Amino acid sequence: MFYLGIDLGGTNIAAGICDENGKIILKKSVPALPEREADAIMNDMARLCLDLLAEANISINDVAYAGIASPGIADPDHGTIVYSCNFPTFVDYPICSVLSEKLGIEKVLVANDANAAAKGEAVCGAAKGYSDSVFVTLGTGVGGGIIIDKKILTGFNYAGAEIGHIVIVHGGRPCNCGRNGCFEAYASATGLIKTTKEKMLADKDSLMWAECGSIDKVSGRTSFDAMRKGDKSAKEAVDEYISYLACGITDIINIFQPEILSIGGGISNEKDYLLEPLKKIVEKEQYSRTCKNKTEIRIAQLGNDAGIIGAAMLGL
Amino acid sequence: MFYLGIDLGGTNIAAGICDENGKIILKKSVPALPEREADAIMNDMARLCLDLLAEANISINDVAYAGIASPGIADPDHGTIVYSCNFPTFVDYPICSVLSEKLGIEKVLVANDANAAAKGEAVCGAAKGYSDSVFVTLGTGVGGGIIIDKKILTGFNYAGAEIGHIVIVHGGRPCNCGRNGCFEAYASATGLIKTTKEKMLADKDSLMWAECGSIDKVSGRTSFDAMRKGDKSAKEAVDEYISYLACGITDIINIFQPEILSIGGGISNEKDYLLEPLKKIVEKEQYSRTCKNKTEIRIAQLGNDAGIIGAAMLGL
Repeated sequence: MFYLGIDLGGTNIAAGICDENGKIILKKSVPALPEREADAIMNDMARLCLDLLAEANISINDVAYAGIASPGIADPDHGTIVYSCNFPTFVDYPICSVLSEKLGIEKVLVANDANAAAKGEAVCGAAKGYSDSVFVTLGTGVGGGIIIDKKILTGFNYAGAEIGHIVIVHGGRPCNCGRNGCFEAYASATGLIKTTKEKMLADKDSLMWAECGSIDKVSGRTSFDAMRKGDKSAKEAVDEYISYLACGITDIINIFQPEILSIGGGISNEKDYLLEPLKKIVEKEQYSRTCKNKTEIRIAQLGNDAGIIGAAMLGL
Repeated sequence: MFYLGIDLGGTNIAAGICDENGKIILKKSVPALPEREADAIMNDMARLCLDLLAEANISINDVAYAGIASPGIADPDHGTIVYSCNFPTFVDYPICSVLSEKLGIEKVLVANDANAAAKGEAVCGAAKGYSDSVFVTLGTGVGGGIIIDKKILTGFNYAGAEIGHIVIVHGGRPCNCGRNGCFEAYASATGLIKTTKEKMLADKDSLMWAECGSIDKVSGRTSFDAMRKGDKSAKEAVDEYISYLACGITDIINIFQPEILSIGGGISNEKDYLLEPLKKIVEKEQYSRTCKNKTEIRIAQLGNDAGIIGAAMLGL
């Protein structure tokens, strides 16, 4: 059998046909144009899937189900998008039954995108073979998904697992969620850029200025790149970033004690420059440091395809 | 059938016979003397249970099982105490099989004490009738138990649910766990006492001085009592305490979105003086504030018997 995975993003709708190992056989995308009426968006989504199947020469009868990874709050029990700030026309929207009808396929599943990515990592990525895992994505924001006993933790109202929105600095940086000092405000790429800019402004001679060209062009890579060239202020920025990241990661471990905690998103591309110092702090700080069995922290494996693959694996 | 619940505390071993509704029919306790050899402790525990049954005129054959609420890390899957700083002789100790033999009863269960209390609240307390709940206890420390889909969340190494040890103030107050700024360092009775003392030292005219007699006698009640008499610094202490408490509670809600979050421990005796201002902050700060269904925060119901009742309810 094959599995259709659909990653409903604010910019593009991406879809892929996967095999049972989560390998993408073929993928395509179309613009999401998320301000449109829901039905127009869904027509494009269905068309994208049918085009994929035609191009791969696979019959819809050979597809076990379609899975959708959606931004915002998705209700997997009732197959709806409850609310997504990116898609204003999707309010309590029965996305599964609508796609089911348009595609002519019985089973359609939905989950929040970070939760779907966590499921993908658990089925065929960094946490493959483990029952309990947490996935943390360090991108524009900090997202997360929690797998307990192979099931996605959603909370009773499907709004749970918002690990980016736990406060680690009481009264700290303002966060988009309305609170101050959230993990996301420090550990996201946006948070790293803020820290990088602070360090640059305090050191006019830092290599970071040459690295990015101008302060408006600072990225999540600026400090890591300049640090590797020996810049002291860049190292301070990275150290400060990792200190906050380790704080939130340790919190998550103290709560869940998962077998695997995998880290994805743009900043995870720093690999060992991120992972090794992070592990050192967590090892020292975690409540379970005296336990024989401790959480293993890994870089996530599914990269930009996490949404498609995670969506395709939702029923496994 | 009846259910034996045993609360293994650092000071006393308390045990009770409960009915299927968690009602205690009879309870007794003996000193724990926790430094002793494990077998001596277990002999006293078994004797306590047999005395209880004799006094209540109940046959061991009418007891469905015995449950043990243990401090430290308990492994319910293998029936062991992995580690407890209070009981140095209980290391990877097969407490269930030992008690099973000494009592002549087949089924003995064990759980961490805060987890057992959470189970008790879920079966017959503040979260009765709900599948997903979190129990937070505000005592000397901050403990917690998390019930998801009616099951206790332990983590793969049984050391999870340490919600007192999530950092809410990066670089803040030292915590017993070795980190700085943990929820426990602010939201426990110990944390409140620290805040109270700070406010007293900054205001020599505060009513709090008369309330407690001397600064060595400050308790978790001092600031609440003086606040009710109109003292301004006392109100500041309570407000600051509740601000930190709300911060950690909101974090827990953003992660778990439980149906019920119940608050126990000594400070929960302040009831609405605690609960009402707490709810106001959480309502404003939680990520799910736009959701139709939101977590309900309640005062826990089982009080000092939470350990006994929770232990007795472990198998239900």
